[in-house]
Amino acid sequence: MRWKYVLHIIGALVACIGLTMVLPFGWGLYYGDGTAYPIGLSMGITVIAGGLAFAFFRDSEASKKSSVMTHREGMAIVALGWFAAGVFGGLPFYLGGTFESVVDCVFESLSGFSTTGSSVLVDIESVPRGLLFWRSLTHWLGGMGIIVFSLAILPFLGIGGMQLYKAEVPGPSPDKLKPRIKDTAMTLWKVYLLFSAVETVLLMFGGMDLFDALCHTFGTMATGGFSTRNTSVAAFDSAYIDYVITVFMVIAGVNFSLHYLLLKGRFKVLIKDPEFRVFAFMIAIFIAIITVFVYAEGNYDTVSDSIRYTSFQVASILTTTGFATADYELWPGVTQAILLFCMFVGGCAGSTGGGMKVMRIMLLFKQSYQELFRLIHPRAVSHVKMGRTVVKDDVISGVWGFFILWLGLLVLAAFIVASTGVDVVTSFAAALACIGNIGPGIGGVGPTDNFAWLPDIAKWVLTFCMVLGRLEIYTVIILFVPEFWRK
Amino acid sequence: MRWKYVLHIIGALVACIGLTMVLPFGWGLYYGDGTAYPIGLSMGITVIAGGLAFAFFRDSEASKKSSVMTHREGMAIVALGWFAAGVFGGLPFYLGGTFESVVDCVFESLSGFSTTGSSVLVDIESVPRGLLFWRSLTHWLGGMGIIVFSLAILPFLGIGGMQLYKAEVPGPSPDKLKPRIKDTAMTLWKVYLLFSAVETVLLMFGGMDLFDALCHTFGTMATGGFSTRNTSVAAFDSAYIDYVITVFMVIAGVNFSLHYLLLKGRFKVLIKDPEFRVFAFMIAIFIAIITVFVYAEGNYDTVSDSIRYTSFQVASILTTTGFATADYELWPGVTQAILLFCMFVGGCAGSTGGGMKVMRIMLLFKQSYQELFRLIHPRAVSHVKMGRTVVKDDVISGVWGFFILWLGLLVLAAFIVASTGVDVVTSFAAALACIGNIGPGIGGVGPTDNFAWLPDIAKWVLTFCMVLGRLEIYTVIILFVPEFWRK
Repeated sequence: MRWKYVLHIIGALVACIGLTMVLPFGWGLYYGDGTAYPIGLSMGITVIAGGLAFAFFRDSEASKKSSVMTHREGMAIVALGWFAAGVFGGLPFYLGGTFESVVDCVFESLSGFSTTGSSVLVDIESVPRGLLFWRSLTHWLGGMGIIVFSLAILPFLGIGGMQLYKAEVPGPSPDKLKPRIKDTAMTLWKVYLLFSAVETVLLMFGGMDLFDALCHTFGTMATGGFSTRNTSVAAFDSAYIDYVITVFMVIAGVNFSLHYLLLKGRFKVLIKDPEFRVFAFMIAIFIAIITVFVYAEGNYDTVSDSIRYTSFQVASILTTTGFATADYELWPGVTQAILLFCMFVGGCAGSTGGGMKVMRIMLLFKQSYQELFRLIHPRAVSHVKMGRTVVKDDVISGVWGFFILWLGLLVLAAFIVASTGVDVVTSFAAALACIGNIGPGIGGVGPTDNFAWLPDIAKWVLTFCMVLGRLEIYTVIILFVPEFWRK
Repeated sequence: MRWKYVLHIIGALVACIGLTMVLPFGWGLYYGDGTAYPIGLSMGITVIAGGLAFAFFRDSEASKKSSVMTHREGMAIVALGWFAAGVFGGLPFYLGGTFESVVDCVFESLSGFSTTGSSVLVDIESVPRGLLFWRSLTHWLGGMGIIVFSLAILPFLGIGGMQLYKAEVPGPSPDKLKPRIKDTAMTLWKVYLLFSAVETVLLMFGGMDLFDALCHTFGTMATGGFSTRNTSVAAFDSAYIDYVITVFMVIAGVNFSLHYLLLKGRFKVLIKDPEFRVFAFMIAIFIAIITVFVYAEGNYDTVSDSIRYTSFQVASILTTTGFATADYELWPGVTQAILLFCMFVGGCAGSTGGGMKVMRIMLLFKQSYQELFRLIHPRAVSHVKMGRTVVKDDVISGVWGFFILWLGLLVLAAFIVASTGVDVVTSFAAALACIGNIGPGIGGVGPTDNFAWLPDIAKWVLTFCMVLGRLEIYTVIILFVPEFWRK
């Protein structure tokens, strides 16, 4: 592990994040809401700190070999880089006086960068707009990071079964990490930018001003969920806006390499992709079932209203966005059970969505069915397939390992949150909402509540969980294994 | 599949169960509580029905080849046999007027035979003693069945990773199922009988009469949980009785082949067994943590009371017995989170305990750690080990397949229960309590509630879940796969 090299790169990353603060700084000037000074100060501190690290840790040996990045270095950069982004990203909130405590600033910032969307803000609308813009921008930046991480870095590292996507990523596939990251990143960011631009325009057609349209686009495309309103998207009370956001949440929950191929004219790729088919099927069937139940229960007067609120909520929860147009805790129990299941599943691999990922859930059930087959035909040889591809054993054991670690950490985090005096349902819901990068949960952290009332220890643990979940756990956990640091 | 042969054996099983009804019949006569007639009638019907099936389906071809039982036949006999036991076992409740509806009778009977202990009885003490004895006896008979199933049949069939225990089962290991079942069964039943006798005597020392001592012994050794009192074991209000039952619940949660070896003088086998060590460690650490929390919270005035109620509850939930001496829903959230985790884990493989089994949870975490190791050392070759034994790949994929099927069915069952109008927490708790064969859950099916208020559909589904969970899912599910029935 070349420490200097790792810190060199993280320095560059932090400086870049500092530079993006120029956007909220601009909004602060525009609205004259007093946020220009604290944001400008944060920008200065962040850029200088990052720049210093970048310059100071530039050693000749590292730059010479800079084209070869080892697995370990890659993981250390991703994990430590995300935490660094979170800490510096919390500066505007701290200097701007949004929160008094450090934990709240870091929680909100990392909730943004991890595209979780859990909030410790009690009164969102009382926060000056410059800071609200920064809050939403952290989502969008985090989303950019996650696309590259999940499609360029994860398959290469082979974490949690993601090596399945190794061959499917557009761009060249050399053995070296760096050129691949760069090419893949540029390609996918164009797609991300394009969708973001389209959604912003469509939302402005619906009556949003540029500020709200951008903030909600950031929350949508990153499957984050921060809104500029206390009542989330419900505040706009527009079926058009609801449906635009619903569609773009679904888009954001799909593997971005599929979007890339689609934009290149390969339309069949979508209907042929086994993961997308299951994802689309789940959305359709869950909307259908929940619509029937909420309409039958009388939650909404008309079928069209039932479909509108149901489809928004299914898309929001399954893609782990977390925007709300309805308080689903008032819906019948079975619909909540379905939404809870959606929280576990999450978006497709290679999307900005969190959760366990559709691909993994599919592989788990396929493997489970395989066992059933083996019991009936003890002597037959068979393999788990994804579409027409035979899934290799290391992918499957990667998925299993990921799955149990995910569940184990969920339970552990829930234990710790509960030990601070929080009730058991809220503890599990909060841990799930954060590890799955969903945002709101059920119980005391439901869609009409927030995370502000939790004890500080719980907030720290949940902040850590958001990054853990976002970086597929292994990338972070590995930093705590002493063996990782040995030469 | 030789249908006649399967029905022949099931007929014999049903007839045997009918014969055991002579015991509650005797208690009915002794107490003169009016149950002798309905129980006697049930006995007659059951013995005759079983005997007829036994006689009618005896075909020459089957008896000639009777020493060779195929995998499929073994699974069909176990699964259908358990359901048959449940239906005939519900007769005394139906004829005795305990419940008006058929679903309640079958629910209570299969809750007994599956050693679950979930009850639809609202006022236990109003039920005549003859029927209460039958209710508890179903536990004990189910426990006998489960020991044989999990130690003689499962490893042979290789279901859910249980092939791990293939070599460890005492007795000869031929390729044929029948002699193994017989020898293993006789050996292990002696152990079961011995422990049952000792517990009964110890409970009588504590002031219980023979009736209560036997009923609670049945509930303990089978990790069932049916009591003869409305407030469960709390009704006896005796620290001595609490501790005796605690110790025997722990004993019942240990692999019975270990008990067998222990009784033969091989004392070291216990401390060397990796599964037992984790099981014992979990009991110790959870008792310690929960004791601290309930004492700090002021749930009990003295440390000794805290230890007493905590250890009883940890043993009861972890072994999936379900006896109660305290309402743990009044305890701090973190203690409930721990107990919820215990519900998932369950007892050791080869015990009468339910849940996922300690062995499986261990293998899952070991595999997960293996993945971490693989990420640090991508080129190293390593294996998951259980003690000193390298665990084969088919065992691990068996465990994974089981795990996901277990979780998937839990979610599906919770969906169905919730769709009948039950709230989401209670739905999941009820499904978990039944699939894990625990008994009480949390929410509307907590330790002070029962299952009587649930809609009929929910009861049927949960009844099915109890058998599914008890028979390691695959044994039952396989009956619904069309391919299973093809020649």
